[in-house]
Amino acid sequence: MSGIIATYLIHDDSHNLIHKAEQIALGLTVGSWTHLPHLLQEQLKQHKGSVISVEELENNEKTNIYLDKKVKRGLIKIHYPSANFSTDLPAIFTTVFGKLSLDGEIKLIDLTFSDDIKKLFPGPKFGINGIRNTLKVHDRPLLMSIFKGMIGRNIGYLKTQLRDQASGGVDIVKDDEILFDNPLTPLSERIRAGKEVLQSVYETYGHKTLYAVNLSGRTYDLKEKAKQAVAAGADLLLFNAFAYGLDVLQALAEDDDISIPIMAHPAVSGTYIASDLYGFSSSLLLGKLLRYAGADFSLFPSPYGTVALKQEEALSLAKSLTDENEPFKRSFPVPSAGIHPGLVPLLIRDFGQQCVINAGGGIHGHPSGAQGGGKAFRSAIDATLTNIPLHEVNDPNLQAALRLWGNPSGEVKA
Amino acid sequence: MSGIIATYLIHDDSHNLIHKAEQIALGLTVGSWTHLPHLLQEQLKQHKGSVISVEELENNEKTNIYLDKKVKRGLIKIHYPSANFSTDLPAIFTTVFGKLSLDGEIKLIDLTFSDDIKKLFPGPKFGINGIRNTLKVHDRPLLMSIFKGMIGRNIGYLKTQLRDQASGGVDIVKDDEILFDNPLTPLSERIRAGKEVLQSVYETYGHKTLYAVNLSGRTYDLKEKAKQAVAAGADLLLFNAFAYGLDVLQALAEDDDISIPIMAHPAVSGTYIASDLYGFSSSLLLGKLLRYAGADFSLFPSPYGTVALKQEEALSLAKSLTDENEPFKRSFPVPSAGIHPGLVPLLIRDFGQQCVINAGGGIHGHPSGAQGGGKAFRSAIDATLTNIPLHEVNDPNLQAALRLWGNPSGEVKA
Repeated sequence: MSGIIATYLIHDDSHNLIHKAEQIALGLTVGSWTHLPHLLQEQLKQHKGSVISVEELENNEKTNIYLDKKVKRGLIKIHYPSANFSTDLPAIFTTVFGKLSLDGEIKLIDLTFSDDIKKLFPGPKFGINGIRNTLKVHDRPLLMSIFKGMIGRNIGYLKTQLRDQASGGVDIVKDDEILFDNPLTPLSERIRAGKEVLQSVYETYGHKTLYAVNLSGRTYDLKEKAKQAVAAGADLLLFNAFAYGLDVLQALAEDDDISIPIMAHPAVSGTYIASDLYGFSSSLLLGKLLRYAGADFSLFPSPYGTVALKQEEALSLAKSLTDENEPFKRSFPVPSAGIHPGLVPLLIRDFGQQCVINAGGGIHGHPSGAQGGGKAFRSAIDATLTNIPLHEVNDPNLQAALRLWGNPSGEVKA
Repeated sequence: MSGIIATYLIHDDSHNLIHKAEQIALGLTVGSWTHLPHLLQEQLKQHKGSVISVEELENNEKTNIYLDKKVKRGLIKIHYPSANFSTDLPAIFTTVFGKLSLDGEIKLIDLTFSDDIKKLFPGPKFGINGIRNTLKVHDRPLLMSIFKGMIGRNIGYLKTQLRDQASGGVDIVKDDEILFDNPLTPLSERIRAGKEVLQSVYETYGHKTLYAVNLSGRTYDLKEKAKQAVAAGADLLLFNAFAYGLDVLQALAEDDDISIPIMAHPAVSGTYIASDLYGFSSSLLLGKLLRYAGADFSLFPSPYGTVALKQEEALSLAKSLTDENEPFKRSFPVPSAGIHPGLVPLLIRDFGQQCVINAGGGIHGHPSGAQGGGKAFRSAIDATLTNIPLHEVNDPNLQAALRLWGNPSGEVKA
């Protein structure tokens, strides 16, 4: 049946999960049911929400103490017929988690769309294969680095940083997400300067690097600005999708004139996903829905750094970006934050080859600078893929990195 | 100094709040400071974030148990210079709570904009006075009711419901937020039918009622749809602002051709505000920022129902909507959910006259139907404003309501 099944984690103090589930299924669709005359029931049948399943979970004493009440934990699944909503994400969110998001300790864990609704979403325009084809890199994870400390700096500084990073062998360099359009380094200038530097690096080293520029500004200006960026020769767009909303991302992805990949940054998403009791699961929001809405890349906190997702959350998120059962191209998982070369074997063990290894400090903080940082990462990637322990690799850049940041992977193999 | 001061509630397991604050102030602006050469410090000074204050709060044992670690609680204030961001809300959110929203137990409590930045926001087009002028009601809280169970129903049903509600004396009737554009009751038809019914009620009873229609659909279609609604004669727009984003609300409010008030619904906002540890404070998001962005009304959970805000949160939210120290028109606070006539004295005690009393079940569930429900509320409002206890009022509609739902206000006076 055409519609969406929502899975919620609830903490219910009425201790009647089935009743709570039924209240949701009716309250958010036809309102009431048993008192309706038969004829009206016939008429409204196709609009009625229904309870798919109710699963009681183990009691969690810490949660009871924190909430100062004894609650029953459960996973409930509710089906919402598509006859009830227009098939845009704002209407879908309002239907399945509008008023309900304010109704006590309830978290939206997953949404399962029927195939006819899925078809209305674009998915990534390029996806993993498209980006690999552009870079002509098919047999290893990609490597990305980030401009650092660009605020208040000029185009000359950007060019130096970009050259250092690209010449170390990184595949993509991205703007910092807090660099907006500004007089010192306006978007068009960044794109122009970036092309110049990256062309020169290519001619010198034969290595191709893409530059992801931050698309920012007012919502209703974004399409035009994105098209200007494309016309100026931009390779990729970085986009703070959660500062705008996934429907905006979708509109950018659907626009044929915005003919370059989009990299979604998780800025502001902590407000949605950080709590175990409220909001959205990270896997749904930064995984499945980003992919449906058309992100070619999804950045998310890696399980290794200080700003971290739990391991199982990060893996589930990456899986939903690359799940082959979906009718969409795959989005690149980009586990980020706290990444240094010694973590490469863990990254490849956990995320496989279909990911982007993304480092800020782990590139810039290298004793030999960003170029040395990039080389250390590339050596670590090659070694891991050929099952050579990092400490045995004959590359002073990698060994310097391991000495500085450690080699937590130890004997881990891919 | 031009910029924004952000106030955060943090739960820090490093137990060094001052260090944490300094990390934020530098990390989210110029990156590093003490190691920079003097000349560069001079150049970057205007971009450097700074710690305004650090206040340690009392330890909370329940939180420690829940988080499974001992944390230091504190309120910290950081100043972000406006030279660092474009003055749109997506850039502001990304700057002050982008990556940081993912960094442990941190909640954004407040934002204080310097006057030059405030000036770039529109505030409400009409505000409390504008709406009162339209209705010619100046001396009491307004009364609003909500269509119920409209999904799957046709225009005839809508007309009957609207007539029942309006003829009971409500000032505004709003669409349910989960009623989207649909074949049975398309937006233009709802507006046309609404005008017809409300004109007829006005001719019969001399009472003016406004109808708030739900503006929905894809983000990039909203402006055009809003203008069509205005052209069709719509009185008010209901808008699920948090399903879209405040920047979209702001764009609607700034558009001179969208010349009717906007009512912001809190659907989906629970994902942002429900947690005490993460996300935004309700007062900031549903109060201050909704007003800055241009909402003429803000609906939020009342402190009385089952879907409730804490009393102090609801009052602080209402205060930020109506604070006279702001350079904007005032937005109408609309404390909602679980409202029935017996609560009117509490509502007026807590929110004063400058609010909208909004009821769904408390109007429709009245023993004499929606008309009786509206009359009961109007009697309760009049009695409260003249200091007459509700149980003494000679109105069978009000007495029936008190019998059904109770009179929790007891002897409360305005």
